[in-house]
Amino acid sequence: MTDSVLEMLESEKSEILNRLLELVSIPSVSTDPTYLDGMAKARELLLRRFHGIGLSNVQTLEAGGHAAVYGEWLATRDRPTILIYGHYDVQPPDPVELWNSPPFEPEIRNGRIYARGVSDDKGPLSIALETMAAFFTVEQTLPFNVKVLLEGEEETGSATLEKILRNHHSLLSTDAVLSADGARWLPGLNAVNVGSRGNAGFEFTVKTADKDLHSGRYGGVVPNALHVLARMVAELHDPDGSVAVPSFYQGAREISDTERQALTDIPFNEHEFFSNTGAPSFGEPGYSALEQLWLRPCLDVNGMWGGYTAPGGKTVIPNEAHAKLTVRIVPGQDPNLVSKAVKDFLLKQCPEGCSVRFGADRGQSAAYELPEGHPLLTAVEAALTDTFGSAPHRIRIGGTLPMADLVRRVLGVDTVMFSFSTADEDFHAPNEFFRLSSLDEGLRAWTALFRRLGEMTNAQFFEFRR
Amino acid sequence: MTDSVLEMLESEKSEILNRLLELVSIPSVSTDPTYLDGMAKARELLLRRFHGIGLSNVQTLEAGGHAAVYGEWLATRDRPTILIYGHYDVQPPDPVELWNSPPFEPEIRNGRIYARGVSDDKGPLSIALETMAAFFTVEQTLPFNVKVLLEGEEETGSATLEKILRNHHSLLSTDAVLSADGARWLPGLNAVNVGSRGNAGFEFTVKTADKDLHSGRYGGVVPNALHVLARMVAELHDPDGSVAVPSFYQGAREISDTERQALTDIPFNEHEFFSNTGAPSFGEPGYSALEQLWLRPCLDVNGMWGGYTAPGGKTVIPNEAHAKLTVRIVPGQDPNLVSKAVKDFLLKQCPEGCSVRFGADRGQSAAYELPEGHPLLTAVEAALTDTFGSAPHRIRIGGTLPMADLVRRVLGVDTVMFSFSTADEDFHAPNEFFRLSSLDEGLRAWTALFRRLGEMTNAQFFEFRR
Repeated sequence: MTDSVLEMLESEKSEILNRLLELVSIPSVSTDPTYLDGMAKARELLLRRFHGIGLSNVQTLEAGGHAAVYGEWLATRDRPTILIYGHYDVQPPDPVELWNSPPFEPEIRNGRIYARGVSDDKGPLSIALETMAAFFTVEQTLPFNVKVLLEGEEETGSATLEKILRNHHSLLSTDAVLSADGARWLPGLNAVNVGSRGNAGFEFTVKTADKDLHSGRYGGVVPNALHVLARMVAELHDPDGSVAVPSFYQGAREISDTERQALTDIPFNEHEFFSNTGAPSFGEPGYSALEQLWLRPCLDVNGMWGGYTAPGGKTVIPNEAHAKLTVRIVPGQDPNLVSKAVKDFLLKQCPEGCSVRFGADRGQSAAYELPEGHPLLTAVEAALTDTFGSAPHRIRIGGTLPMADLVRRVLGVDTVMFSFSTADEDFHAPNEFFRLSSLDEGLRAWTALFRRLGEMTNAQFFEFRR
Repeated sequence: MTDSVLEMLESEKSEILNRLLELVSIPSVSTDPTYLDGMAKARELLLRRFHGIGLSNVQTLEAGGHAAVYGEWLATRDRPTILIYGHYDVQPPDPVELWNSPPFEPEIRNGRIYARGVSDDKGPLSIALETMAAFFTVEQTLPFNVKVLLEGEEETGSATLEKILRNHHSLLSTDAVLSADGARWLPGLNAVNVGSRGNAGFEFTVKTADKDLHSGRYGGVVPNALHVLARMVAELHDPDGSVAVPSFYQGAREISDTERQALTDIPFNEHEFFSNTGAPSFGEPGYSALEQLWLRPCLDVNGMWGGYTAPGGKTVIPNEAHAKLTVRIVPGQDPNLVSKAVKDFLLKQCPEGCSVRFGADRGQSAAYELPEGHPLLTAVEAALTDTFGSAPHRIRIGGTLPMADLVRRVLGVDTVMFSFSTADEDFHAPNEFFRLSSLDEGLRAWTALFRRLGEMTNAQFFEFRR
């Protein structure tokens, strides 16, 4: 198979790598205002790159938050129009002291690039951009209509993406969305994602007194905000790992026997999965790990703090304690209802004379499921078969792509995830990395997909648009 | 009553205040190594002051931690020798943002000096030093033998005080100890302390996996260190406020009916006590607030942290979570046994596959009770009667004076607390203050006590020395 685009990509290998290293050197952390500069720098680099590739109508789209970067190539009327999605923002690097090399100074070790955001999502989005660049260089055009939208708020729950989509509804009109975000599940497993969990989250503060009190003067006769918070958090789960919040599981559809069987057929080494984390197996009884991860909701406290946390001791009874909490929800559930159920439960645990204050809701997204027979899914499955020599498994992810839910609601189209990062790459943790081999695989698969889409017509997509 | 020493103190009023303001401007925080400079500066100031007052044999006593400052005046062979104790170290100022004026830039507002350490213990120890200074100025001597020891580790549990006492056993030999630390219980209540609770503490870390995990990839099937910690902390207490740790109350002596009645006779406005804190009343059923605070042990988590605590959200499953914990114990209990009972209980709560790691023990002190008929107690009661016109109530404190326990064990003598700070002065919290009126009362009472001790002989103390 000598594809001239693949040859071009092969000859450009070191330039492609250098461009990725430059991109991940930029600390584009969207969740923390101290990184605003890094966000601006990442946008500038991407705008230059879009122009350099040959995209037209290049611009930023902004709706009060971090701007998205947009470009397009509309040349072939009867071919499908595909909106390629990715995000240039990254997770915070904390705890920085646990990184073996600085998070924003990429280092290549043992065939892996280590840097914050290299797996989520700068490596995968670079594959999309490099594939386009190679097609332009070799063929001076793309085989179908492309729109590219890279948002800057994925890691904070895509706060203004909905506004951006609504404000630029016709600019962004498309037959389907191809996401460069989402992550492959297991290294070496040829698979395509057909669904993701949704999420919702908020933080809350427990207050038990007007001020911190001295444990020698008040110890034993006043409540302690940390004790109250601890009890609230403890009560969220039963000891077996099930969530104890009433109505928490409401709406989650039953898993059919056929579906259970399909999940069992996936080559998944549960033992290895857990031993890689150093964590014991755990969770809701009666469900396999895959069933839990893909089709059952869960609740995690992501941060908890209060009182004296610096070196040494302090005999204080803290009057305030804080926690950040997120839920993952499944098809059939409403993020707002689940959030409300959790808040109601926390309020009910609050002892008399104490109070709970809730912060703003964060990232309320429904879960997502791809409809059977979708033409972009067909094209992706064909491209993966072309690339790896066998048909991909259909899997799901336990994480959330807020935009898939959003895109269906606002643009009326479906999203197929086609990322070449892998779920074990410690994104959202120290020492995030991206495999150099994934860069190669991704470029080959995206080239194959571009060829497959070049053989399709826009008419094939009509029945799937709403 | 025209006492020439009191007249001298009155005429020196503004100099006395300025010297105190200078002392509290020094950030002598013993618990945090970033304040080492402040600790050294406080010692230098006190050494100069000891020389200036007229004390002899002035020196620092050091045993591997923060040095104590020592001075003495030994002139009158048949009079008692009293070791005056205080501490020049202070609590950390956190959370600094809640202070209305900077913690180490003292401000006088509404008859109160606001500064970290002004109440605990720099104001009270200054009263002792100023009283001595005035006696020297007026009478060129002190009416009894004085040794002064100001330690620098009270706020960290007096880690090397025992070594200092043992290494300088004959230098520090005394008939009794008079403590300028300890705090008066209620503003306006003429009282003398006859006992204090002991304490013990440690920090611990819960570990549930080798690294932080992403809640999208693992949410639901792995334990979360914050959930495990929360459950451990929650299980420490029953919902009614009692401590649920087995053997926790073991050794605590019964409170007799006579004792209960004496506690009831103390003019204590429970409603006001609680409404000043903004906290609801709470705690072990079957005991009044005073009984709980003075004669029942308690357990408080003083700090708790883990996961993502910066602005914004992060969908992380933290693999580690931390807590700092202290207990207050009562006469009859052993701090090591109580600590061990709590640790055993925490270990028992730890789920399989997870681990608990304990930090070093901090501040293990037994509780303290003054023997009936002690001559220093008699002198203090007389001095308070002289000063306020009525006999003081005998009360206790819920806090801990580690040195009282230590001094009895090492020097074989008892300690009477004679501090003029007040327990409502927010030491160990933001906006610590000291009343200017307490400064006046303290100087009068210390002068009266010096007169009373000048009428006593050392022989009166023999039977109370061990």
